[in-house]
Amino acid sequence: MLSEMKRLEKQMDFIKVVDSLKNIDRRSYILDGSRNENDAEHSWHLALMALILSEHSNGQDIDLMKVIRMLLIHDIVEIDAGDTFAYDEEGNRTKVQRERECADRIFNILPDDQARELLSLWEEFEARETKEARFAASLDRLQPILLNHGTKGRTWREHGVQADQVRKRNEHIHEGSETIWSYTKDLIEDSVKGGYLEE
Amino acid sequence: MLSEMKRLEKQMDFIKVVDSLKNIDRRSYILDGSRNENDAEHSWHLALMALILSEHSNGQDIDLMKVIRMLLIHDIVEIDAGDTFAYDEEGNRTKVQRERECADRIFNILPDDQARELLSLWEEFEARETKEARFAASLDRLQPILLNHGTKGRTWREHGVQADQVRKRNEHIHEGSETIWSYTKDLIEDSVKGGYLEE
Repeated sequence: MLSEMKRLEKQMDFIKVVDSLKNIDRRSYILDGSRNENDAEHSWHLALMALILSEHSNGQDIDLMKVIRMLLIHDIVEIDAGDTFAYDEEGNRTKVQRERECADRIFNILPDDQARELLSLWEEFEARETKEARFAASLDRLQPILLNHGTKGRTWREHGVQADQVRKRNEHIHEGSETIWSYTKDLIEDSVKGGYLEE
Repeated sequence: MLSEMKRLEKQMDFIKVVDSLKNIDRRSYILDGSRNENDAEHSWHLALMALILSEHSNGQDIDLMKVIRMLLIHDIVEIDAGDTFAYDEEGNRTKVQRERECADRIFNILPDDQARELLSLWEEFEARETKEARFAASLDRLQPILLNHGTKGRTWREHGVQADQVRKRNEHIHEGSETIWSYTKDLIEDSVKGGYLEE
Protein backbone atom coordinates (compact mmCIF):
# COMPACT_ATOMS: atom_id res chain seq x y z
CA MET A 1 0.00 0.00 0.00
CA LEU A 2 1.23 3.46 -0.89
CA SER A 3 1.34 6.13 1.79
CA GLU A 4 -1.15 8.98 1.45
CA MET A 5 1.60 11.34 0.27
CA LYS A 6 2.88 8.85 -2.31
CA ARG A 7 -0.66 8.43 -3.66
CA LEU A 8 -1.09 12.19 -3.78
CA GLU A 9 2.11 12.59 -5.80
CA LYS A 10 0.96 10.10 -8.42
CA GLN A 11 -2.45 11.76 -8.56
CA MET A 12 -0.87 15.19 -9.00
CA ASP A 13 1.36 13.84 -11.77
CA PHE A 14 -1.75 12.63 -13.57
CA ILE A 15 -3.51 15.95 -13.02
CA LYS A 16 -0.54 17.77 -14.57
CA VAL A 17 -0.23 15.41 -17.55
CA VAL A 18 -3.90 15.71 -18.49
CA ASP A 19 -3.51 19.50 -18.69
CA SER A 20 -2.48 18.74 -22.30
CA LEU A 21 -6.09 17.93 -23.16
CA LYS A 22 -6.49 21.72 -23.39
CA ASN A 23 -4.24 21.57 -26.47
CA ILE A 24 -6.13 18.90 -28.38
CA ASP A 25 -8.22 20.75 -30.92
CA ARG A 26 -11.41 19.31 -32.34
CA ARG A 27 -12.94 19.96 -35.76
CA SER A 28 -15.90 21.74 -34.13
CA TYR A 29 -15.96 25.51 -33.70
CA ILE A 30 -17.18 27.14 -30.51
CA LEU A 31 -20.54 28.83 -31.01
CA ASP A 32 -19.23 32.32 -31.77
CA GLY A 33 -17.14 30.77 -34.56
CA SER A 34 -13.94 32.45 -33.36
CA ARG A 35 -11.87 29.27 -33.08
CA ASN A 36 -11.91 25.48 -32.82
CA GLU A 37 -13.04 23.88 -29.62
CA ASN A 38 -10.59 21.81 -27.63
CA ASP A 39 -11.15 18.50 -25.86
CA ALA A 40 -11.04 19.92 -22.32
CA GLU A 41 -13.79 22.46 -23.04
CA HIS A 42 -15.78 19.82 -24.88
CA SER A 43 -15.54 17.48 -21.87
CA TRP A 44 -16.75 20.23 -19.53
CA HIS A 45 -19.65 21.02 -21.83
CA LEU A 46 -20.69 17.35 -22.00
CA ALA A 47 -20.51 16.82 -18.24
CA LEU A 48 -22.69 19.88 -17.72
CA MET A 49 -25.12 18.66 -20.39
CA ALA A 50 -25.39 15.33 -18.56
CA LEU A 51 -26.31 17.22 -15.40
CA ILE A 52 -29.02 19.21 -17.18
CA LEU A 53 -30.39 16.57 -19.54
CA SER A 54 -30.36 13.34 -17.51
CA GLU A 55 -34.17 13.31 -17.24
CA HIS A 56 -34.30 12.55 -20.98
CA SER A 57 -32.23 9.39 -20.78
CA ASN A 58 -33.98 6.21 -21.92
CA GLY A 59 -32.52 4.35 -18.95
CA GLN A 60 -34.61 4.41 -15.81
CA ASP A 61 -32.60 5.15 -12.65
CA ILE A 62 -29.46 5.91 -14.64
CA ASP A 63 -26.27 6.33 -12.57
CA LEU A 64 -25.62 10.00 -13.41
CA MET A 65 -22.35 10.07 -11.48
CA LYS A 66 -21.03 7.30 -13.72
CA VAL A 67 -22.14 9.19 -16.84
CA ILE A 68 -20.31 12.30 -15.67
CA ARG A 69 -17.17 10.40 -14.71
CA MET A 70 -17.13 8.84 -18.18
CA LEU A 71 -17.55 12.19 -19.88
CA LEU A 72 -14.81 13.84 -17.82
CA ILE A 73 -12.26 11.21 -18.87
CA HIS A 74 -13.49 9.94 -22.25
CA ASP A 75 -11.18 12.08 -24.38
CA ILE A 76 -8.01 11.79 -22.30
CA VAL A 77 -6.92 9.02 -24.70
CA GLU A 78 -6.64 11.69 -27.40
CA ILE A 79 -3.68 13.35 -25.66
CA ASP A 80 -1.30 11.05 -27.57
CA ALA A 81 -3.71 9.76 -30.22
CA GLY A 82 -5.10 13.12 -31.32
CA ASP A 83 -8.72 13.83 -32.17
CA THR A 84 -9.98 11.58 -34.96
CA PHE A 85 -12.60 13.36 -37.04
CA ALA A 86 -15.86 11.39 -37.04
CA TYR A 87 -15.95 11.31 -40.85
CA ASP A 88 -12.28 10.37 -41.39
CA GLU A 89 -12.43 6.70 -42.48
CA GLU A 90 -8.68 6.12 -42.62
CA GLY A 91 -8.11 7.67 -39.18
CA ASN A 92 -10.91 5.65 -37.67
CA ARG A 93 -9.25 2.39 -38.74
CA THR A 94 -6.19 3.01 -36.56
CA LYS A 95 -8.01 4.90 -33.80
CA VAL A 96 -8.66 1.95 -31.47
CA GLN A 97 -5.01 0.92 -31.23
CA ARG A 98 -3.72 4.48 -30.84
CA GLU A 99 -6.21 5.30 -28.13
CA ARG A 100 -5.58 2.05 -26.26
CA GLU A 101 -1.85 2.81 -26.05
CA CYS A 102 -2.54 6.30 -24.75
CA ALA A 103 -5.02 4.99 -22.17
CA ASP A 104 -2.44 2.49 -20.91
CA ARG A 105 0.20 5.18 -20.60
CA ILE A 106 -1.81 7.96 -19.01
CA PHE A 107 -4.23 6.16 -16.68
CA ASN A 108 -1.32 4.12 -15.31
CA ILE A 109 0.27 7.27 -13.92
CA LEU A 110 -2.39 7.01 -11.18
CA PRO A 111 -2.25 4.66 -8.16
CA ASP A 112 -3.17 1.12 -9.36
CA ASP A 113 -6.73 1.07 -8.03
CA GLN A 114 -7.59 4.37 -9.72
CA ALA A 115 -5.81 3.39 -12.95
CA ARG A 116 -7.90 0.21 -13.17
CA GLU A 117 -11.07 2.10 -12.35
CA LEU A 118 -10.60 4.76 -15.05
CA LEU A 119 -9.47 2.25 -17.68
CA SER A 120 -12.55 0.19 -17.05
CA LEU A 121 -14.75 3.30 -17.18
CA TRP A 122 -13.22 4.30 -20.50
CA GLU A 123 -13.74 0.76 -21.88
CA GLU A 124 -17.35 0.84 -20.76
CA PHE A 125 -17.85 4.17 -22.54
CA GLU A 126 -16.28 2.84 -25.74
CA ALA A 127 -18.29 -0.40 -25.70
CA ARG A 128 -21.59 1.52 -25.49
CA GLU A 129 -23.46 -1.41 -23.98
CA THR A 130 -24.62 -0.07 -20.61
CA LYS A 131 -27.34 2.55 -20.30
CA GLU A 132 -24.83 5.00 -18.83
CA ALA A 133 -22.42 4.56 -21.76
CA ARG A 134 -25.26 4.92 -24.24
CA PHE A 135 -26.50 8.13 -22.68
CA ALA A 136 -22.96 9.54 -22.44
CA ALA A 137 -22.38 8.67 -26.11
CA SER A 138 -25.61 10.35 -27.14
CA LEU A 139 -24.45 13.63 -25.58
CA ASP A 140 -21.02 13.25 -27.17
CA ARG A 141 -22.77 13.09 -30.56
CA LEU A 142 -25.37 15.78 -29.94
CA GLN A 143 -22.87 18.42 -28.84
CA PRO A 144 -20.91 18.83 -32.11
CA ILE A 145 -24.21 18.90 -34.03
CA LEU A 146 -25.36 21.71 -31.75
CA LEU A 147 -22.13 23.60 -32.50
CA ASN A 148 -22.36 22.89 -36.22
CA HIS A 149 -25.97 24.02 -36.39
CA GLY A 150 -25.11 27.16 -34.41
CA THR A 151 -22.22 28.06 -36.74
CA LYS A 152 -24.20 27.47 -39.94
CA GLY A 153 -22.58 24.08 -40.56
CA ARG A 154 -19.04 25.39 -40.54
CA THR A 155 -17.28 22.07 -39.91
CA TRP A 156 -19.60 20.16 -42.25
CA ARG A 157 -18.98 22.65 -45.02
CA GLU A 158 -15.21 22.70 -44.48
CA HIS A 159 -15.05 18.93 -44.79
CA GLY A 160 -17.79 18.35 -47.37
CA VAL A 161 -19.84 16.25 -44.97
CA GLN A 162 -23.31 15.28 -46.26
CA ALA A 163 -26.63 14.91 -44.51
CA ASP A 164 -26.82 11.13 -44.89
CA GLN A 165 -23.41 10.72 -43.26
CA VAL A 166 -24.58 12.79 -40.32
CA ARG A 167 -27.84 10.85 -40.02
CA LYS A 168 -26.12 7.47 -40.17
CA ARG A 169 -23.19 8.37 -37.90
CA ASN A 170 -25.47 9.77 -35.19
CA GLU A 171 -28.43 7.45 -35.33
CA HIS A 172 -27.29 5.59 -32.23
CA ILE A 173 -28.18 8.66 -30.17
CA HIS A 174 -31.61 7.02 -29.92
CA GLU A 175 -30.08 4.19 -27.86
CA GLY A 176 -29.27 6.73 -25.15
CA SER A 177 -32.26 9.01 -25.48
CA GLU A 178 -35.19 8.93 -27.89
CA THR A 179 -36.00 12.52 -26.94
CA ILE A 180 -32.52 13.78 -27.71
CA TRP A 181 -32.45 11.86 -30.99
CA SER A 182 -35.72 13.45 -31.99
CA TYR A 183 -34.28 16.90 -31.16
CA THR A 184 -31.08 16.07 -33.08
CA LYS A 185 -33.00 14.98 -36.17
CA ASP A 186 -34.75 18.35 -36.14
CA LEU A 187 -31.37 20.10 -35.99
CA ILE A 188 -30.13 18.06 -38.94
CA GLU A 189 -33.24 18.76 -41.04
CA ASP A 190 -33.11 22.43 -40.12
CA SER A 191 -29.47 22.52 -41.24
CA VAL A 192 -30.39 20.96 -44.56
CA LYS A 193 -33.20 23.48 -45.01
CA GLY A 194 -30.92 26.35 -44.08
CA GLY A 195 -28.35 25.21 -46.62
CA TYR A 196 -25.71 24.47 -43.95
CA LEU A 197 -25.66 20.76 -44.71
CA GLU A 198 -25.71 19.26 -48.18
CA GLU A 199 -28.35 16.63 -48.94
CA MET B 1 -45.91 22.03 -15.84
CA LEU B 2 -43.91 22.37 -19.03
CA SER B 3 -44.09 19.61 -21.62
CA GLU B 4 -40.94 17.52 -22.10
CA MET B 5 -40.14 19.29 -25.38
CA LYS B 6 -40.62 22.73 -23.82
CA ARG B 7 -38.26 21.79 -20.98
CA LEU B 8 -35.74 20.47 -23.50
CA GLU B 9 -35.83 23.73 -25.43
CA LYS B 10 -35.05 25.77 -22.33
CA GLN B 11 -32.30 23.37 -21.37
CA MET B 12 -30.78 23.58 -24.85
CA ASP B 13 -30.92 27.39 -24.72
CA PHE B 14 -28.96 27.26 -21.48
CA ILE B 15 -26.46 24.79 -22.96
CA LYS B 16 -25.88 27.15 -25.90
CA VAL B 17 -25.54 30.27 -23.75
CA VAL B 18 -22.94 28.73 -21.46
CA ASP B 19 -20.76 27.94 -24.50
CA SER B 20 -19.43 31.48 -23.87
CA LEU B 21 -17.56 30.23 -20.82
CA LYS B 22 -14.97 29.01 -23.33
CA ASN B 23 -14.24 32.68 -24.05
CA ILE B 24 -13.67 33.82 -20.47
CA ASP B 25 -9.92 33.89 -20.02
CA ARG B 26 -8.27 33.53 -16.65
CA ARG B 27 -4.96 34.96 -15.48
CA SER B 28 -3.47 31.46 -15.26
CA TYR B 29 -1.49 29.95 -18.13
CA ILE B 30 -1.95 26.33 -19.20
CA LEU B 31 1.03 24.21 -18.21
CA ASP B 32 2.93 24.49 -21.50
CA GLY B 33 2.79 28.28 -21.15
CA SER B 34 1.40 28.76 -24.66
CA ARG B 35 -1.69 30.76 -23.66
CA ASN B 36 -4.08 31.69 -20.86
CA GLU B 37 -6.49 29.12 -19.55
CA ASN B 38 -10.21 29.72 -19.96
CA ASP B 39 -13.01 29.08 -17.49
CA ALA B 40 -14.47 26.07 -19.32
CA GLU B 41 -11.16 24.20 -19.32
CA HIS B 42 -10.55 25.21 -15.72
CA SER B 43 -13.96 23.82 -14.73
CA TRP B 44 -13.22 20.52 -16.47
CA HIS B 45 -9.84 20.29 -14.75
CA LEU B 46 -11.39 20.92 -11.33
CA ALA B 47 -14.18 18.37 -11.79
CA LEU B 48 -11.62 15.76 -12.78
CA MET B 49 -9.44 16.72 -9.79
CA ALA B 50 -12.43 16.19 -7.50
CA LEU B 51 -12.87 12.70 -8.95
CA ILE B 52 -9.21 11.82 -8.37
CA LEU B 53 -8.59 13.59 -5.06
CA SER B 54 -11.79 13.08 -3.07
CA GLU B 55 -10.09 10.64 -0.67
CA HIS B 56 -8.09 13.59 0.71
CA SER B 57 -11.11 15.63 1.72
CA ASN B 58 -11.41 16.43 5.43
CA GLY B 59 -15.11 15.64 5.31
CA GLN B 60 -16.04 12.02 5.98
CA ASP B 61 -18.60 10.64 3.50
CA ILE B 62 -18.47 13.75 1.36
CA ASP B 63 -21.11 13.95 -1.41
CA LEU B 64 -18.74 13.83 -4.39
CA MET B 65 -21.54 14.30 -6.90
CA LYS B 66 -22.42 17.60 -5.23
CA VAL B 67 -18.77 18.71 -5.31
CA ILE B 68 -18.57 17.96 -9.03
CA ARG B 69 -21.87 19.68 -9.79
CA MET B 70 -20.61 22.78 -7.98
CA LEU B 71 -17.35 22.77 -9.88
CA LEU B 72 -19.04 22.35 -13.25
CA ILE B 73 -21.20 25.43 -12.71
CA HIS B 74 -19.18 27.63 -10.31
CA ASP B 75 -17.71 29.92 -12.98
CA ILE B 76 -20.79 30.34 -15.18
CA VAL B 77 -21.43 33.60 -13.31
CA GLU B 78 -18.28 34.97 -14.96
CA ILE B 79 -19.88 34.92 -18.42
CA ASP B 80 -21.20 38.45 -17.83
CA ALA B 81 -19.08 39.40 -14.82
CA GLY B 82 -15.70 38.36 -16.23
CA ASP B 83 -12.95 36.63 -14.29
CA THR B 84 -11.88 38.66 -11.27
CA PHE B 85 -8.21 38.14 -10.52
CA ALA B 86 -7.73 36.80 -6.99
CA TYR B 87 -5.33 39.62 -6.11
CA ASP B 88 -7.38 42.47 -7.63
CA GLU B 89 -8.77 44.31 -4.57
CA GLU B 90 -10.89 46.80 -6.50
CA GLY B 91 -12.42 44.09 -8.71
CA ASN B 92 -13.19 41.93 -5.71
CA ARG B 93 -15.26 44.73 -4.11
CA THR B 94 -17.80 44.73 -6.96
CA LYS B 95 -17.54 41.00 -7.75
CA VAL B 96 -20.43 39.79 -5.59
CA GLN B 97 -22.99 42.11 -7.19
CA ARG B 98 -21.79 41.48 -10.75
CA GLU B 99 -21.80 37.73 -10.31
CA ARG B 100 -25.23 37.70 -8.66
CA GLU B 101 -26.76 39.51 -11.63
CA CYS B 102 -25.19 37.06 -14.06
CA ALA B 103 -26.37 34.07 -12.01
CA ASP B 104 -29.92 35.42 -12.03
CA ARG B 105 -29.85 35.93 -15.77
CA ILE B 106 -28.23 32.70 -16.89
CA PHE B 107 -29.56 30.09 -14.47
CA ASN B 108 -33.08 31.40 -15.06
CA ILE B 109 -32.89 30.34 -18.70
CA LEU B 110 -33.48 26.81 -17.36
CA PRO B 111 -36.85 25.37 -16.28
CA ASP B 112 -37.71 26.78 -12.82
CA ASP B 113 -36.81 23.69 -10.78
CA GLN B 114 -33.37 23.45 -12.35
CA ALA B 115 -32.79 27.20 -12.13
CA ARG B 116 -33.48 27.11 -8.39
CA GLU B 117 -31.30 24.04 -7.95
CA LEU B 118 -28.26 25.52 -9.69
CA LEU B 119 -28.64 28.93 -8.02
CA SER B 120 -28.71 27.27 -4.65
CA LEU B 121 -25.72 25.11 -5.55
CA TRP B 122 -23.77 28.19 -6.63
CA GLU B 123 -24.72 29.99 -3.39
CA GLU B 124 -23.59 27.00 -1.37
CA PHE B 125 -20.26 27.03 -3.19
CA GLU B 126 -19.78 30.74 -2.56
CA ALA B 127 -20.71 30.53 1.13
CA ARG B 128 -18.07 27.83 1.75
CA GLU B 129 -19.84 26.50 4.80
CA THR B 130 -20.61 22.88 3.91
CA LYS B 131 -17.91 20.25 3.63
CA GLU B 132 -18.64 19.88 -0.09
CA ALA B 133 -18.24 23.62 -0.73
CA ARG B 134 -15.02 23.70 1.29
CA PHE B 135 -13.52 20.82 -0.60
CA ALA B 136 -14.60 22.29 -3.95
CA ALA B 137 -13.07 25.64 -2.97
CA SER B 138 -9.80 24.00 -1.95
CA LEU B 139 -9.45 22.50 -5.44
CA ASP B 140 -10.36 25.85 -7.03
CA ARG B 141 -7.43 27.37 -5.13
CA LEU B 142 -4.94 24.56 -5.60
CA GLN B 143 -5.31 24.39 -9.39
CA PRO B 144 -3.98 27.88 -10.30
CA ILE B 145 -1.08 27.34 -7.89
CA LEU B 146 -0.29 24.09 -9.69
CA LEU B 147 -0.31 25.98 -13.01
CA ASN B 148 1.74 28.84 -11.61
CA HIS B 149 4.32 26.50 -10.11
CA GLY B 150 4.49 24.57 -13.40
CA THR B 151 5.06 27.73 -15.45
CA LYS B 152 7.75 29.14 -13.13
CA GLY B 153 5.35 31.58 -11.50
CA ARG B 154 4.33 33.26 -14.74
CA THR B 155 1.08 34.85 -13.49
CA TRP B 156 2.58 35.80 -10.14
CA ARG B 157 5.52 37.50 -11.84
CA GLU B 158 3.34 39.30 -14.37
CA HIS B 159 1.21 40.78 -11.60
CA GLY B 160 3.89 41.25 -8.93
CA VAL B 161 2.14 38.89 -6.51
CA GLN B 162 4.11 38.11 -3.36
CA ALA B 163 4.44 34.93 -1.31
CA ASP B 164 2.55 36.28 1.70
CA GLN B 165 -0.43 37.22 -0.46
CA VAL B 166 -0.50 33.68 -1.85
CA ARG B 167 -0.21 32.12 1.61
CA LYS B 168 -2.97 34.29 3.07
CA ARG B 169 -5.33 34.06 0.12
CA ASN B 170 -5.12 30.27 -0.04
CA GLU B 171 -4.90 29.32 3.61
CA HIS B 172 -8.55 28.27 3.66
CA ILE B 173 -7.59 25.26 1.54
CA HIS B 174 -7.02 23.53 4.89
CA GLU B 175 -10.76 23.77 5.63
CA GLY B 176 -11.38 21.45 2.69
CA SER B 177 -8.34 19.24 2.94
CA GLU B 178 -5.40 19.35 5.34
CA THR B 179 -3.48 17.04 2.99
CA ILE B 180 -3.97 19.29 -0.01
CA TRP B 181 -3.07 22.37 2.02
CA SER B 182 0.14 20.70 3.10
CA TYR B 183 0.94 19.87 -0.54
CA THR B 184 0.07 23.44 -1.59
CA LYS B 185 2.35 24.95 1.05
CA ASP B 186 5.20 22.87 -0.36
CA LEU B 187 4.43 24.21 -3.85
CA ILE B 188 4.50 27.78 -2.51
CA GLU B 189 7.78 27.29 -0.65
CA ASP B 190 9.31 25.55 -3.67
CA SER B 191 8.26 28.50 -5.82
CA VAL B 192 9.92 30.93 -3.42
CA LYS B 193 13.10 28.83 -3.43
CA GLY B 194 13.05 28.60 -7.22
CA GLY B 195 12.73 32.37 -7.50
CA TYR B 196 9.26 32.16 -9.12
CA LEU B 197 7.54 33.88 -6.24
CA GLU B 198 8.86 36.89 -4.41
CA GLU B 199 9.13 36.71 -0.62
